Amino acid sequence: MKFSPLLSELISALTCLPGVGNKSAQRMAFHLLERNRQGALALSTVLHNAMEHIRHCQRCRTFTEDPLCEICRHPERADSGLLCIVESPQDVMAIEQTLTFKGTYFVLMGHLSPIDGIGPDDIGLGELEQRLREEAISEVILATNPTVEGEATAHYIAQLCSRHNIEASRIAHGVPVGGELEYIDGNTLTHAFSGRRRL
Amino acid sequence: MKFSPLLSELISALTCLPGVGNKSAQRMAFHLLERNRQGALALSTVLHNAMEHIRHCQRCRTFTEDPLCEICRHPERADSGLLCIVESPQDVMAIEQTLTFKGTYFVLMGHLSPIDGIGPDDIGLGELEQRLREEAISEVILATNPTVEGEATAHYIAQLCSRHNIEASRIAHGVPVGGELEYIDGNTLTHAFSGRRRL
Ligand SMILES: [Zn+2]
Ligand SMILES: [Zn+2]
Repeated sequence: MKFSPLLSELISALTCLPGVGNKSAQRMAFHLLERNRQGALALSTVLHNAMEHIRHCQRCRTFTEDPLCEICRHPERADSGLLCIVESPQDVMAIEQTLTFKGTYFVLMGHLSPIDGIGPDDIGLGELEQRLREEAISEVILATNPTVEGEATAHYIAQLCSRHNIEASRIAHGVPVGGELEYIDGNTLTHAFSGRRRL
Repeated sequence: MKFSPLLSELISALTCLPGVGNKSAQRMAFHLLERNRQGALALSTVLHNAMEHIRHCQRCRTFTEDPLCEICRHPERADSGLLCIVESPQDVMAIEQTLTFKGTYFVLMGHLSPIDGIGPDDIGLGELEQRLREEAISEVILATNPTVEGEATAHYIAQLCSRHNIEASRIAHGVPVGGELEYIDGNTLTHAFSGRRRL
């Protein structure tokens, strides 16, 4: 004996969510059926609309239902001449929350990873080069993650920039503000030393 | 700056799932948009169908899209005279997997909990009494959880049964098969001693 066909289907469909196995999917299905059918119906509708309408911004590749995202539509940002390269839309969000950057972004939606077969075309570097050619960009700020792949990707894009005679910079890595030296990993400390600045 | 309106809506709708906060909801939304739009569309459809069509079995109260669930439709099970009371549909599933029980069920969808305002009507005891009156039931097996509320609920239903002159039994609690005594909690050991049987 199993759950009813429709209930089994629901449990199985819920496992398409990342980190949700059969047991959690069961718990979710029962929770929604018992306590939040309205919420589940609303989720069903939004899920459909989002999958049908959210595409990539034609300029920066972040997720948006409009041809251009809110940041790319902003005239002063486009005129700033600053272009920040990040790996994901969440990174855009993190940087925006600091209120320190007023330029535009290019979202790679990943990083170079030859082992996984992810090459320059998969992270939109053709579109990036087009922007380097067509826009008046004075500086490209490389804000990919401080991982092996993030560093390699930053390095690769820096070379692209130099071919277009555009200055490229890398965000600083070092001891986080408020961090205590004894708890910082060695790799970060090495970065902190090699990136030291004269006071 | 925030995520696009539709993306924000998706993230917020995903938090209706139990155990999913804003951060996990973001991760889920990006995962579906980047890697599994087909799965998300399928989930949207099933979610809608399930919420619209899954109701409670008219006889045992478990979740089903049919008027009667598969077990209640089974003629030999209805004729067995055995009725097992459980708290949830998952409990039915666990018992069914043992292949030891061939009667029917009554699913309380909870347990008595005066503190939370959950009384006899909320766990369907009116419908249960109707079954006790109308069906030829020889024994009610109380398989509620071995918690304070589960025990209180079992006790309450046992009194109902005695008023209808139907035998009620409680499933045995004790040391799990394969369990080592030194790792068993005291409460379980107490149950194991008081429930001992002559060999
Ligand atoms: Zn954009
Ligand atoms: Zn049933």
